[in-house]
Amino acid sequence: MKIRLVLHVVALLQMFVGATMILPVLFALHYNEPAIIPFLEAMGLTIGVGAVVFALTRTGADIRVREGFGIVTLGWAAIAAFGSLPFLFSGAIPGITDAYFETLSGFTTTGASILTEIESMPKSLLLWRSQTQWLGGMGIIVLSIAILPFLGVGGMQLFRAEVPGPTPDRLKPRISHTAGLLWGVYLLLTVMELLLLHWGGMDLYEALNHSFTTMATGGFSIKNGSIGYYQSAFVQYVIIFFMFMAGINFSLHYRFLTGGRPGVYFHNREWVFYIMILSGATVAIFLSNLMAGQQYGEKAVRDSLFQVVSITTTTGFATADFDSWSSLSRIMLLALMFVGGCAGSTGGGMKVIRLLLILKHGKSEIKKLLHPRAIFLVKVKKIKVRPEVMLNVQGFFNLYIALFVFCTFLMAALGLDMITAASSVAATLGNIGPGLGGVGPIANYSEIPLLGKWVLNLCMLLGRLEIYTVIILFMPEVWRKF
Amino acid sequence: MKIRLVLHVVALLQMFVGATMILPVLFALHYNEPAIIPFLEAMGLTIGVGAVVFALTRTGADIRVREGFGIVTLGWAAIAAFGSLPFLFSGAIPGITDAYFETLSGFTTTGASILTEIESMPKSLLLWRSQTQWLGGMGIIVLSIAILPFLGVGGMQLFRAEVPGPTPDRLKPRISHTAGLLWGVYLLLTVMELLLLHWGGMDLYEALNHSFTTMATGGFSIKNGSIGYYQSAFVQYVIIFFMFMAGINFSLHYRFLTGGRPGVYFHNREWVFYIMILSGATVAIFLSNLMAGQQYGEKAVRDSLFQVVSITTTTGFATADFDSWSSLSRIMLLALMFVGGCAGSTGGGMKVIRLLLILKHGKSEIKKLLHPRAIFLVKVKKIKVRPEVMLNVQGFFNLYIALFVFCTFLMAALGLDMITAASSVAATLGNIGPGLGGVGPIANYSEIPLLGKWVLNLCMLLGRLEIYTVIILFMPEVWRKF
Repeated sequence: MKIRLVLHVVALLQMFVGATMILPVLFALHYNEPAIIPFLEAMGLTIGVGAVVFALTRTGADIRVREGFGIVTLGWAAIAAFGSLPFLFSGAIPGITDAYFETLSGFTTTGASILTEIESMPKSLLLWRSQTQWLGGMGIIVLSIAILPFLGVGGMQLFRAEVPGPTPDRLKPRISHTAGLLWGVYLLLTVMELLLLHWGGMDLYEALNHSFTTMATGGFSIKNGSIGYYQSAFVQYVIIFFMFMAGINFSLHYRFLTGGRPGVYFHNREWVFYIMILSGATVAIFLSNLMAGQQYGEKAVRDSLFQVVSITTTTGFATADFDSWSSLSRIMLLALMFVGGCAGSTGGGMKVIRLLLILKHGKSEIKKLLHPRAIFLVKVKKIKVRPEVMLNVQGFFNLYIALFVFCTFLMAALGLDMITAASSVAATLGNIGPGLGGVGPIANYSEIPLLGKWVLNLCMLLGRLEIYTVIILFMPEVWRKF
Repeated sequence: MKIRLVLHVVALLQMFVGATMILPVLFALHYNEPAIIPFLEAMGLTIGVGAVVFALTRTGADIRVREGFGIVTLGWAAIAAFGSLPFLFSGAIPGITDAYFETLSGFTTTGASILTEIESMPKSLLLWRSQTQWLGGMGIIVLSIAILPFLGVGGMQLFRAEVPGPTPDRLKPRISHTAGLLWGVYLLLTVMELLLLHWGGMDLYEALNHSFTTMATGGFSIKNGSIGYYQSAFVQYVIIFFMFMAGINFSLHYRFLTGGRPGVYFHNREWVFYIMILSGATVAIFLSNLMAGQQYGEKAVRDSLFQVVSITTTTGFATADFDSWSSLSRIMLLALMFVGGCAGSTGGGMKVIRLLLILKHGKSEIKKLLHPRAIFLVKVKKIKVRPEVMLNVQGFFNLYIALFVFCTFLMAALGLDMITAASSVAATLGNIGPGLGGVGPIANYSEIPLLGKWVLNLCMLLGRLEIYTVIILFMPEVWRKF
């Protein structure tokens, strides 16, 4: 690995992120908050260190696959470190562990929070907190659609040119051009949500924060009661809609916006399966809550729909204390944490396409028993999925489950009860945010022991970067000089 | 599917099982129990119905793969039905659901019980209960080593001649000859355990019951307190040893007994991994319990070892209320329920070899990232595992997880709390017996709602017959006339 090259690119990213701190600084100025001084210090340090490293590491070397992994992983980790400076310098979050946890939770669009009194935070810091998620979402779209496929990682690799993937949907391969287009879509959707939320009664500041964290499927809210604070059905439906949109492959949105028809969505098998999961789970959870004694009515339907969309897209907003719902509802929500959004969305989790392929594969193995000599390949839209691709998907599934089990052991070893241990890992590995039990929607991550927070930090990073990207850095081969 | 042929073979099995009822009848005679009359009725009905069906379904047809699946699944289900007659006729277990649950739990070597007062049952009925497990164990060894491989199912298919499997260990393929050899080993180990337990202080009746249920990795005990009733360390270590032996591939035992050296075991990668899992989990659980305040000493080590071996081999005996252990210990035991014994043992679960391959596969996918053009095949002892075999193992893993999740939803929908729902499914699908929470070692399955018992019945059957064997019968194609 060429470390200089990795640092060079990371420094560039860092300067960019530092520059975006201007937005919360302007809000601090507007609201006349004392947080403005520590904010300017943090901004200066982030850009300054970035500039020095950038200047010192100039190199003419080409970026190879191994440097790609280094840039992505180190980039996310470093930006979270510098991004936590405003919280630390202002004293709003005193401990390094807590500040890093909150910021990494932001940049990985997880939304797990250690803040117990969100509403007492300075507005500029809360905006920065929401903004980390929006920036993380920007990063993830480009990462998943344009960068990871070239590194051979991620659900989107199924769409690579040389692999007969499940759909021929592909954007132009040039990264910078692609990035620009996707960000346009992302920005457009964010602005649309902002206007609708403002129209629905939120002030511009509130609307901006929630648009940032919805489109990133992040889930940070500036209210202690999350979206439950806003009783307006209109506001809640708007957020449901945009969470739903954020969980869809952004290349579909792009094609739709550039003159496509709704068929762009309907002909995409992953999207269809996504709809099936969302509607099936909503009906099941609504009925289960009803039988468990919840009142019948539009509010009950809305709460079920909201929570299913929020968890499946890995946003993590809450309008109700779902941890007090029926046993079936809770366990279904826990299972949905593993599903996640579509590939190429801002959602986390295993991704809908992988789940679809895994289920199809199970079915093909049953057929094979009756015709042992025949060859059955999993097909998506008549296109055959090659065994190597299937094995890759399975490998990811294995690693995801193995990490979930192993990290749950670690959390349990730190003294957490089974449900808190398992759901805190599921909720961070899948980049959801709230879990059940001790990390449920009305609790938060502040009570997790120090070591546990670092385990969960690792889970957030692993989950967000599709596991392989991070794990590969533990192989000695990657670190060889050339 | 040729139904006549299927019924013909099942009727033969049924007559055999009916004939073995003579053993508990003799005990009823010896102890002068009134259960002798209902027992003779049950025996007569089982053999009688078997004989009539056998006579009526004479056919010259050959057994093909699809009939094989029918015979195995229907065989297990039918024998459990007739095997439940002594419980029903004697009134010891009044309900059909409960009687079927208890008997299927026996023949599938699960050990989940609905009995709340075991010690008040007639001795002949308790012996029959233990005997169902021993017979089930007999069936499973032959099924997994000699029959399922020819149907293309199960961990042992990895050892098929035409597939370069992980080890060249194979027994002679002729089923009847192989069956005789394996049953010899099974009988020998049972007799050895019986003598050792008797020597350790159990009377012959107690020793017979526990030898039956240990070697089958069944876990039914004739004491309310399971093996915890026997305070003798010697007895507990004997049972640990034979549970351990029962969880090993019986073809290894056969090779060792026919002049092999201990190297037979040490050169088998599955066995080595089995040892690693058992010892790793024992140490972790022992330490975790210690930190949670359990007293230090030989008893604490023994309890940890006993429980790890009991759960991993899917026996399900208990010497302590492990549901009151530390959070980590409980969650590790829950995870061990998925591991199970080695392929070709009487243990259930996913089997050690599958887990080993799945982990190796995850590792190979990471390597592949650095060398995208190279081909990495999982190897066990330098023998390459072909992609088709790997995909089959993965397909099984997917189905196992999918069934676990789906059945847990069903159990939760019936009102069980999350831990009881999840662990009851894990403990029946893996053929273990006791779970956690409402089905923990000091509770039992009597409080599970009626429908839930049938869900768990299906889990026991699916888990015991390696899933595919049962699921394939739901495909219409299997039922076509020819």
